[in-house]
Amino acid sequence: MIDQLVEKIKKTGAPIVVGLDPQMKFIPDEVKTPVFDEMGETLEAAGEILFRFNKKIVDAVYDLVPAVKPQIAMYERFGIPGLVAYQKTIDYCKGKGLVVIGDVKRGDIGSTSEAYADAHLGRVMVGDREYKAFDEDFATVNPYLGSDGVLPFLKVCDTQDKGVFILVKTSNPSSGEFQDRLVLAPSSEDGPDSVFFAGNKKDGITLADILESADRSDLTALSLRPLYEVVAKKVDEWASDPGLIGQSGYSEVGAVVGATYPKMGKALRKLMPKSYILVPGYGAQGGKGKDLVHFFNEDGLGAIVNSSRGIIAAYKSAPYCDKYSPEDFADASRAAVKAMKKDIKEALD
Amino acid sequence: MIDQLVEKIKKTGAPIVVGLDPQMKFIPDEVKTPVFDEMGETLEAAGEILFRFNKKIVDAVYDLVPAVKPQIAMYERFGIPGLVAYQKTIDYCKGKGLVVIGDVKRGDIGSTSEAYADAHLGRVMVGDREYKAFDEDFATVNPYLGSDGVLPFLKVCDTQDKGVFILVKTSNPSSGEFQDRLVLAPSSEDGPDSVFFAGNKKDGITLADILESADRSDLTALSLRPLYEVVAKKVDEWASDPGLIGQSGYSEVGAVVGATYPKMGKALRKLMPKSYILVPGYGAQGGKGKDLVHFFNEDGLGAIVNSSRGIIAAYKSAPYCDKYSPEDFADASRAAVKAMKKDIKEALD
Repeated sequence: MIDQLVEKIKKTGAPIVVGLDPQMKFIPDEVKTPVFDEMGETLEAAGEILFRFNKKIVDAVYDLVPAVKPQIAMYERFGIPGLVAYQKTIDYCKGKGLVVIGDVKRGDIGSTSEAYADAHLGRVMVGDREYKAFDEDFATVNPYLGSDGVLPFLKVCDTQDKGVFILVKTSNPSSGEFQDRLVLAPSSEDGPDSVFFAGNKKDGITLADILESADRSDLTALSLRPLYEVVAKKVDEWASDPGLIGQSGYSEVGAVVGATYPKMGKALRKLMPKSYILVPGYGAQGGKGKDLVHFFNEDGLGAIVNSSRGIIAAYKSAPYCDKYSPEDFADASRAAVKAMKKDIKEALD
Repeated sequence: MIDQLVEKIKKTGAPIVVGLDPQMKFIPDEVKTPVFDEMGETLEAAGEILFRFNKKIVDAVYDLVPAVKPQIAMYERFGIPGLVAYQKTIDYCKGKGLVVIGDVKRGDIGSTSEAYADAHLGRVMVGDREYKAFDEDFATVNPYLGSDGVLPFLKVCDTQDKGVFILVKTSNPSSGEFQDRLVLAPSSEDGPDSVFFAGNKKDGITLADILESADRSDLTALSLRPLYEVVAKKVDEWASDPGLIGQSGYSEVGAVVGATYPKMGKALRKLMPKSYILVPGYGAQGGKGKDLVHFFNEDGLGAIVNSSRGIIAAYKSAPYCDKYSPEDFADASRAAVKAMKKDIKEALD
């Protein structure tokens, strides 16, 4: 699936993914009113509104971008009818030839991650019949539970030609609270792993204690690195499975790194050479084209930048609000995609 | 909601939650066949089978336990029809007077976590009408994104009288990969926080470098602690909000700590005195009653132990498989709940 994504990025010249994260406040009355008139103010109406809003935006931008990223939470909020709209959005986007990245951030213990992997990327048996459930092309995965929470997704990526983007450094303001913590890690590749874990005697003792107890070689063998780098090294290990590397040289195992942390993006780009980086946080969250340069490789590939509000709600803010009326929201989204494409291209050139 | 949970635990004398994580392989043909005959081998049939299986188990055990914990992944696997079964399971269990813990492990950036919080614990507006979506009583939350991924859930807990269990140390074998990493943390409560983050100069340098550069007082002020303890301290901070503390003295903010790590459970119990601990991993994953003692406080409260496969699939394994035929699977589940209750009571006495 990563090869299809790379192909579409080259074809469109746009390393851009449109985040389909509809919130009612973004959706103009021109879309809402007829549905409410028809279905009343029901959860079913809410789902239908989300889908009609998405459909108009997709119709306006599908020829400009390689991919979309629906954020399932925005649909799950409306219960079953919202999730029906999520499913319809996936199917409609795939019908338009777009790669669909399901922003689901799932992750659990092994047998449970297997169920999530089946739900979003795989197939499921009912008696002797096989079905696909949501069937996105990629899914985002939360790594906090470790390998046995991630490997079931990778197994499905291998058998079903799908991909994942694993959270490494997220775009939100408080992502550093845990992700930036300095952790004890090997200075080189070949340190004994046990020493880095809580089970050992060093648990809870001060650095001064360590200095007194440990010998010099121990101390130079150990560094303090941010947790996101430790996660990134694991992502690179997962991504390096030959079975998951595509013709493009990129792996089905990508990473999420926020545009809001460009310095970290530069370091992480080097730590995960085989992984495509999905970059959220552009636009509304504050990321700019110039911040994105180091997320990309020399060949101008290796990253795909997401914008959600900045595109789907473009008609509500400058400069588009002056040029486009609410009923022309989809045209405003198209203009915003073109501006984003230009901003990123200029930064990369 | 935590007070209701504590009340029911006292009333039943069972600090036990039944994990409703149905997998097709656990479900006897006596449940499957009539549904397949009626609906064919469809996703809708799969959902109906999950619900009928759950219903029989709930009918057999609802008087013995305070709570159930449906694992949404097992339903999401079957797409929309599976999620309809999840919703029906929640509604049915609440109708039986059970507290429902939605094991959803959601967590995202602020505006997205808000949508998840609405979906599972809160309410959502459609036009001028207010609806509940899934409406569990508690939800499990993944903390990897930090405070702004968690606070939207806490806001809903406050306004809607709901609760959360935040992942601290999970029960799976590889949970240590990231959760057990030793991180730089203050030796006492009052260390400057900046030093613990990646932004500072210590990033990536060896301990030997630190020894040479830093002075003695720095070194004694800094300890190496497992990440799960750092997360636990944050959970205790969130749990300490007076608005979230119930009559029982416990907070709406609980924690997940796996039964498979009893030593860590002992340490974490002390770090989060106001938090109820949801303890997965009993039974099928290997946890035993004696391992659980230190998850509880002196008063015998403070923890609730989950068993999923060990109860819902009891009829498939010893000793129950000898006494119960597949059609009596629910009676086997009832017997397994009674045995679990006895095992935990004996360990606590």
